[in-house]
Amino acid sequence: MHISKFAIPEIIFGRGSLNHAGQCARSLGAKKAFVVSDSGIEEAGWLQCLQNILEREGIRWVYYPGVTSNPRDFQVEQGAELYVKNGADVIIAIGGGSVLDTAKGVAILASNGGKIADYEGANRVARPLPPMLLITTTAGNGSDISQFCIITDQKRHVKMSIITRTLVPNISIIDPLILRTKPESLIIHSAIDALAHAIEAYVSRIASPLTEMHSLKAVDIILDQLPVAVVTRSIESLEQLSIASISASMAFSNASLGAEHALAHSLGGQFDMQHGVVHPILLPSVMRFNLPFNTHKMAELGRVILKRDLGSDEDTARAGIERLDTFFASFNVPLRLREIVPEQQHSTLVAICQMAVQDACNLTNPKPATWEEFLQIVEEVW
Amino acid sequence: MHISKFAIPEIIFGRGSLNHAGQCARSLGAKKAFVVSDSGIEEAGWLQCLQNILEREGIRWVYYPGVTSNPRDFQVEQGAELYVKNGADVIIAIGGGSVLDTAKGVAILASNGGKIADYEGANRVARPLPPMLLITTTAGNGSDISQFCIITDQKRHVKMSIITRTLVPNISIIDPLILRTKPESLIIHSAIDALAHAIEAYVSRIASPLTEMHSLKAVDIILDQLPVAVVTRSIESLEQLSIASISASMAFSNASLGAEHALAHSLGGQFDMQHGVVHPILLPSVMRFNLPFNTHKMAELGRVILKRDLGSDEDTARAGIERLDTFFASFNVPLRLREIVPEQQHSTLVAICQMAVQDACNLTNPKPATWEEFLQIVEEVW
Repeated sequence: MHISKFAIPEIIFGRGSLNHAGQCARSLGAKKAFVVSDSGIEEAGWLQCLQNILEREGIRWVYYPGVTSNPRDFQVEQGAELYVKNGADVIIAIGGGSVLDTAKGVAILASNGGKIADYEGANRVARPLPPMLLITTTAGNGSDISQFCIITDQKRHVKMSIITRTLVPNISIIDPLILRTKPESLIIHSAIDALAHAIEAYVSRIASPLTEMHSLKAVDIILDQLPVAVVTRSIESLEQLSIASISASMAFSNASLGAEHALAHSLGGQFDMQHGVVHPILLPSVMRFNLPFNTHKMAELGRVILKRDLGSDEDTARAGIERLDTFFASFNVPLRLREIVPEQQHSTLVAICQMAVQDACNLTNPKPATWEEFLQIVEEVW
Repeated sequence: MHISKFAIPEIIFGRGSLNHAGQCARSLGAKKAFVVSDSGIEEAGWLQCLQNILEREGIRWVYYPGVTSNPRDFQVEQGAELYVKNGADVIIAIGGGSVLDTAKGVAILASNGGKIADYEGANRVARPLPPMLLITTTAGNGSDISQFCIITDQKRHVKMSIITRTLVPNISIIDPLILRTKPESLIIHSAIDALAHAIEAYVSRIASPLTEMHSLKAVDIILDQLPVAVVTRSIESLEQLSIASISASMAFSNASLGAEHALAHSLGGQFDMQHGVVHPILLPSVMRFNLPFNTHKMAELGRVILKRDLGSDEDTARAGIERLDTFFASFNVPLRLREIVPEQQHSTLVAICQMAVQDACNLTNPKPATWEEFLQIVEEVW
């Protein structure tokens, strides 16, 4: 077995844990916080709620609202300028993956300078980052736990993966009460994103016993609880999805991901689609591609998905993937690529597949895919 | 569900991970490290190995060897003096629980001053501690992961529990190769200590879904792998015990312990016995005491121990405890208190039980035990 590293932030979890944000910020030395969020969170009232909590603790703040879905390089660069100009000392973000990744990008540039594209890839950030307190508003993106940051390069139309130990924030607050204000589609797509994290991390070439346990736990919970959460919206089921997301994030942050995320980043950079939308389309197909390269672990996943063993590893693994097909079809989500990519863009798929080969996530796939193999996968699901 | 906090160090795990100690120390800013260890580790050659690694990285060090089993208050105070006098900047310890707890005690006093007894209890350490890199040489004590530090007060004959978030070290290195130089009895007692951590954390009043998963995983692995490790000494089984110990430590550090550890600390303070020796004697009896106060969770433990369900929660829980009795009896370890406490000291048991009530661990037991209940437990196992 190789040597594994396992790092996570301090986690504050539970209903009402948002109320601890002031204390946490203070413990990080905040006098003037740099707060990142977006209009959706503002409208839902959570930003105001956070600002009140900070004010009660006597912490001043400057607000950076310039976040869109799939954050762009220039937004991060603007944010970093604002951070430095205002003499902020701690970064606090409340939002989904786009908000949290923007905050991380700002952290990199605030202390390391340069352009965000300078840091694309693994372990390219040299200087320590400002303290970070991240508050997730979805159960899936995992940015609040992970050492990943995904930023879109506007010119190249690429989602850049930036991966480094210091991107693990100091503190992550996960408050399931916040999930109650989220629409159904976001709950589904976030949970399926977490499912993809868990599955890709489980079969990753650098998975370890410390990450595998978290992967399997997450798969088990999401299969059980997502249908319940969609129908009932009960706080118990949303809480379970939060726990699954934490486990999936601990796994993928430390074991990395695979070919499915490499392709998702490449597609997302080109078409500015919501990240979660692509997983129900791609995941089963990438799993079928991976099956011969780690049949044993794919069967282990099958056992958790099916809650039984069909005798042979191959049969169990294959039936597990088929069960996922049925699972995804039970929700109101696109299942073919042509539903989210315009017909006339079909010709760009070759370039997208060539780009996916370069993504850091492809390196840890059971067998890194070639662009021809990626093309076969996207044609299959077109 | 209450709000849960979950914090662990960065973990470097795997065969040969000790070789990363230099790099890790450097990442913590070490120029002159304060190295803590003991004569057993010196004799086994691990201290020399660590010092070579530090020297290769150009890190100077000062060595504090003054550690005995069950470290005393004055040893910690001597260590802190040496730390300050030498202008050390990072604390590195290699050893079992006693060595690691000494290092933590030195860290507290080096930056907070005073006497170590000033910090007894939960959350009494105000100032930040020097960076700590801890390298465990046993699979069980968990001090390298946890926010606990246990130091004996010489005058009162008490093992003081000091519990605070900042006692979680920055980095923990866990190298299963080191376990190969350990005697059989230490492997058994360390694994049973980890088993007690896992079980007490699981039924703790502040357990959370984040800790429960780790508890059950640890129980499962230890029951399976300890008998294999004792017979074969295979590196695979020692590695599994290391993983179990990491899981158990993540659980108890964040969910705390219970009445069994309260009693173990009280007995250990009085009789200076090796901490691990007392668990096979006390654990089943404390579990029987706890059964009516959380039958559901005790049954969940029973299911993992037995790998089956006997129908009723009560029956499953009880059979699980009986299985532990048999499990402990299969090793060459004391099973009655009179084997480790001199007959003429029987009369001190009342005072020991009165002391155990005060231990911070008793607070999180399913029902905190009274001294009379503790007395009944120790008489049962006398």
